[in-house]
Amino acid sequence: MDSQTLLYIVPLCGVLALTYAVLRGIWINKQDAGNERMQTIAAHIREGAMAFLRREYSVLAIFVVVVAALLAWANYSNNAGLIGVSVLAGALCSGAAGFFGMRVATAANVRTASAARSSLNQALKVAFSGGAVMGFCVVGLGILGLSTLYLLYSGMFVEGGVTDLNRVIKVITGFSFGASSIALFARVGGGIFTKAADVGADLVGKVEAGIPEDDPRNPATIADNVGDNVGDVAGMGADLFESYVGAIIGSLVLGAAAALNAGETGRAPALVLLPLVLAGLGIVVSLASTFLVRTKEGGNPSHALHAGTLSAAVVMLIVTYFVTRALVTDTYPLAAGGEFGAMGIFWATLAGLVAGVAIGLITEYYTSESRSPAQGIAQESLTGSATNIIAGLALGMKSTALPVIVLVAAMMVAYSQAGLYGIAIAALGMLSTTGIQLAVDAFGPVADNAGGIAEMSHLGPEVRGRTDRLDAVGNTTAAIGKGFAIGSAALTALALFAAFRTTMGLEEIDVANPKVMGGLFLGAMLPFLFSSMAMQAVGRAASAMIEEVRRQFKTIPGLLEGDENAEADYATCVDIATQGAIRQMVMPGVLAISVPVIVGFYDRSGATLGGVLAGVTATGVMMAIFQANAGGAWDNAKKYIEEGHHGGKGSDAHKAAVVGDTVGDPFKDTSGPSLNILIKLMSVVALVIAPLLI
Amino acid sequence: MDSQTLLYIVPLCGVLALTYAVLRGIWINKQDAGNERMQTIAAHIREGAMAFLRREYSVLAIFVVVVAALLAWANYSNNAGLIGVSVLAGALCSGAAGFFGMRVATAANVRTASAARSSLNQALKVAFSGGAVMGFCVVGLGILGLSTLYLLYSGMFVEGGVTDLNRVIKVITGFSFGASSIALFARVGGGIFTKAADVGADLVGKVEAGIPEDDPRNPATIADNVGDNVGDVAGMGADLFESYVGAIIGSLVLGAAAALNAGETGRAPALVLLPLVLAGLGIVVSLASTFLVRTKEGGNPSHALHAGTLSAAVVMLIVTYFVTRALVTDTYPLAAGGEFGAMGIFWATLAGLVAGVAIGLITEYYTSESRSPAQGIAQESLTGSATNIIAGLALGMKSTALPVIVLVAAMMVAYSQAGLYGIAIAALGMLSTTGIQLAVDAFGPVADNAGGIAEMSHLGPEVRGRTDRLDAVGNTTAAIGKGFAIGSAALTALALFAAFRTTMGLEEIDVANPKVMGGLFLGAMLPFLFSSMAMQAVGRAASAMIEEVRRQFKTIPGLLEGDENAEADYATCVDIATQGAIRQMVMPGVLAISVPVIVGFYDRSGATLGGVLAGVTATGVMMAIFQANAGGAWDNAKKYIEEGHHGGKGSDAHKAAVVGDTVGDPFKDTSGPSLNILIKLMSVVALVIAPLLI
Repeated sequence: MDSQTLLYIVPLCGVLALTYAVLRGIWINKQDAGNERMQTIAAHIREGAMAFLRREYSVLAIFVVVVAALLAWANYSNNAGLIGVSVLAGALCSGAAGFFGMRVATAANVRTASAARSSLNQALKVAFSGGAVMGFCVVGLGILGLSTLYLLYSGMFVEGGVTDLNRVIKVITGFSFGASSIALFARVGGGIFTKAADVGADLVGKVEAGIPEDDPRNPATIADNVGDNVGDVAGMGADLFESYVGAIIGSLVLGAAAALNAGETGRAPALVLLPLVLAGLGIVVSLASTFLVRTKEGGNPSHALHAGTLSAAVVMLIVTYFVTRALVTDTYPLAAGGEFGAMGIFWATLAGLVAGVAIGLITEYYTSESRSPAQGIAQESLTGSATNIIAGLALGMKSTALPVIVLVAAMMVAYSQAGLYGIAIAALGMLSTTGIQLAVDAFGPVADNAGGIAEMSHLGPEVRGRTDRLDAVGNTTAAIGKGFAIGSAALTALALFAAFRTTMGLEEIDVANPKVMGGLFLGAMLPFLFSSMAMQAVGRAASAMIEEVRRQFKTIPGLLEGDENAEADYATCVDIATQGAIRQMVMPGVLAISVPVIVGFYDRSGATLGGVLAGVTATGVMMAIFQANAGGAWDNAKKYIEEGHHGGKGSDAHKAAVVGDTVGDPFKDTSGPSLNILIKLMSVVALVIAPLLI
Repeated sequence: MDSQTLLYIVPLCGVLALTYAVLRGIWINKQDAGNERMQTIAAHIREGAMAFLRREYSVLAIFVVVVAALLAWANYSNNAGLIGVSVLAGALCSGAAGFFGMRVATAANVRTASAARSSLNQALKVAFSGGAVMGFCVVGLGILGLSTLYLLYSGMFVEGGVTDLNRVIKVITGFSFGASSIALFARVGGGIFTKAADVGADLVGKVEAGIPEDDPRNPATIADNVGDNVGDVAGMGADLFESYVGAIIGSLVLGAAAALNAGETGRAPALVLLPLVLAGLGIVVSLASTFLVRTKEGGNPSHALHAGTLSAAVVMLIVTYFVTRALVTDTYPLAAGGEFGAMGIFWATLAGLVAGVAIGLITEYYTSESRSPAQGIAQESLTGSATNIIAGLALGMKSTALPVIVLVAAMMVAYSQAGLYGIAIAALGMLSTTGIQLAVDAFGPVADNAGGIAEMSHLGPEVRGRTDRLDAVGNTTAAIGKGFAIGSAALTALALFAAFRTTMGLEEIDVANPKVMGGLFLGAMLPFLFSSMAMQAVGRAASAMIEEVRRQFKTIPGLLEGDENAEADYATCVDIATQGAIRQMVMPGVLAISVPVIVGFYDRSGATLGGVLAGVTATGVMMAIFQANAGGAWDNAKKYIEEGHHGGKGSDAHKAAVVGDTVGDPFKDTSGPSLNILIKLMSVVALVIAPLLI
């Protein structure tokens, strides 16, 4: 096959992923949706989730169209205005993935609960299928959109019979920007929604009124379940969509630069073709691995999930080895001297893959309730909430060390083996199996929802036991997924940073130059400011929710007493969380997008902007890890106590641990994960405006 | 006067400061030391404080001598081994300042309590004098040691009748390293001591046994008062000694480079002479301003203190204008094009001074109990400790924004006006009035101690009212002082960073180079790891203290009941805090010193080390501000509630606020301030080993 043919096969991999997603979706919808009560509750959740998405997308649509138009106008000459089309396509693909993923996830939740009435394996299968639809929509639409645009542009921008790679690349970066915009608002908005609902439901329901979690009398309980979907399904999906697309585009930019530098031309030189082909093959490998995810009654669902992701990683590595050797036959110069070829690229991919797995395992170590760090926090809860908080903060801060060392090692290996291109390829290596990774991730909230529905529908303890089992596994996979999301965001941001520098043609970004140092300081400050805004946004949205729940308990007669005829007004709670989230996501979003633009045009040399990007990436990664792990460890320290240690539920230690868990909630579900987006988005904005600065 | 004569006048300014300190010390010792009970308590505190210093210094002595010997050996050729002498001198001067300052502070505390029996102004005068001895010992020994070494070395390193400036500078940097070593252990060890004692005294005494603060029955109460001295007097003194000396040395390095670049030679070219002269004059101005610190009965002591520091700043600015114009008559090229002369240097000084004042005021805004941020935290305490903690964390993170913008602005102005030299001079501008700044700072713990002694000696409510008055003022000045310490540490670190780069002759430290980026990530991680270690150290030391206090309450008959014959074993508590602090300070210290050495020798180009320094400085400043302001705001939110708001003492809001205060304690007194040292120390280590790497 020549490279021309291969280029056409890449979008077909996307089509394959989407076909699989559709088939899985149809299969899920065919499953038993349970009794009437279950269906009613599930309908409430689905309506709430879709209503949130609609509202969010209406705001986003305006934003994206305006930005696309501005970028098209600013780049109008020479057909570069097509960048506006790329932005729209990126936003549309990411939005569509979120839309379909969420539709199916909100169908899978109730069917998982229903399946749990008969078998653990069947419940696992439904929940995992629900996650898989999200996963394969993301990679399918990502690669389909991107490769179609590539085919289009590389056919259009032809000069004297030869494709003008530079112009293709310049225009295609908009796709990443579109994806980032969706990701920003989906992560921030979804994070605010989910925590506002959670805090509202817990504080008034559990603490003040003393009714159990997921009790149908609690008006915020539907909003709480909606929140799991908009935060952990749609938010996480948009986050990984951005990383996935960002890593590919970073590789395209740096691959094209290396190829042109080596005098290669053509529609798709090897270094440009390779990331597209690897991403396509990653889909096929991920898809095949989904069939490994199955368990027996009494078996361990987490082994089933790990079998899927690990086998995907191993197979992908073997595939990468042969594909890279087949495609990359030349060698390219390294800036540090020497040259790199196929093997160098392979080692870079390996570095990325290993780093991804390692960071996941480290995250699991620091947050799992069966390991000493979280148990240490449980121990500190014995002396009160203050020591619980200090222990959690100290743990979160300490837990930055190992992941950072792993990241730096991966980056150094990748760079030494294949230059800047190697860093982008390492990010891609980490992300090539995103399909199954995200399937496992999104499985968590589906299982969580299933548990909620089972509780609200008064299904028996055996059913609840099965969903709890899945939910517990979901918590571990969520922790690993968070580590993976941060690690991939960091490598992607570094790849985009390198792409920015290459596009700007910057000789150096010298931190000893006070402009760069000033930028570095400003950049390092942004994750702090951004986290603070996200936390305060949760606080504000949660207050509105608390008031509403209190109002309903007071004004709806018989509600608290459990009167058959009294029904909570779930919709208003969903509405309040939606409004709060959408209103509160604007300011952080504006900050993230405006800072690189303002700094970029203030100092058009790119030096200050380079400093800002370096600062925001370095500090953003630390703050993301710190907050995610502290939050995860607090959560599991509480669970550890609830299992009966240190006095169990209701003890003083438990009360102290609940404080830690509440503090950890916005940390791990709102401000922490939003930083992944912040660092990628700012690099993307810089990359997109780079041609305008020169 | 020619420059030769001026050079000899500089050490005389140091002698002047020391003379003033001695006279003040004698005056303090002449004051009435109160009744027998007061004297006994004060003797306990002094013994404890001096015992801690002795133990700390014995550990430090070994460390400093070994390091000095190693450095002397590594630089043995060409008399550069004298750098070992510089290290010893720096450590000795800093150590001696801490020793004398603490001796007098522990004499002033009881005399302040005694004076408060008759008059507020007299009490203010004694307490301020106690702080002033610390302040003027620091600047006096700093400038005396440094300028004497300069005279010595510049007389020794003469080649063909002309001083070899490069060699002088290279050898003199060791002074800063010696000062940094003392600062590191004094800040970290002092911070651990003070919080371990505080937590131990509070948790067992106030919470478990229900006896008031500073009750003589509490065995840890003396240790608590000792802690204020070793943490806030000696620790802060060593911190500012390091900043002060670092800023001067940074100016010397960069001034010598600029002068040699412009073809100037001689013993002290204008740009080298200027920082020494400005530092000397700063002492004279500070000294004169101390006479403005006085108040009337019923007056506001804080106005008196502000009058002192502000007038010093204004006068210093005027002095700087004339001195700079007189000394600097040439112009020097700027890297960015153009040139700078006296006026440029003046603007740089102004930028530093203004930034120092602005950061102090911003800190005061975010932490004062009479402003909305801390009151907002008090408000959030109504819904429990979780919301109190979230609000404090969010506030601390947000409060990084303005100080960083101020710092960056100052840096940009200074650089545009006088190049890299300007940045060092801006740091010096901020620090030239350190004498009175530190006097005001160290006043706080003296007043705090006086309150404790008054309480323990059962002095009347009127006396206690006066000491409380001074203590409250001390809390505000402490907050401002912390902001000032962070700001000056940041500018000093930047100056040292520039000096490192100049010494290494690095053309660039390019963050787009993955080695630098890797260093940046590692550097950005260190403040998180370091903070975590410091917090956990407090936890460990506090546990030992808690056990000891519990043991004494259990085993000493009649102690808790207040039996006349039962006396608590204060010495053992002091001993436990001392041992804990000294044991726990080693690991963070080793980390801070070993990382730059290992990284430096791993990549001798200096690129990775440059990245590490940039990362640690940027993130370190954020983490320092975040932790200091969150801690300060939590503290004052609690005080605001104690004044009767939201239910006052004993209410649920108060309980929630106590949790925040406890979390904030290690933040603001241990891990936060230690970061000041971390960033300066790592830059100094890099600067000192730079000649060995080339």
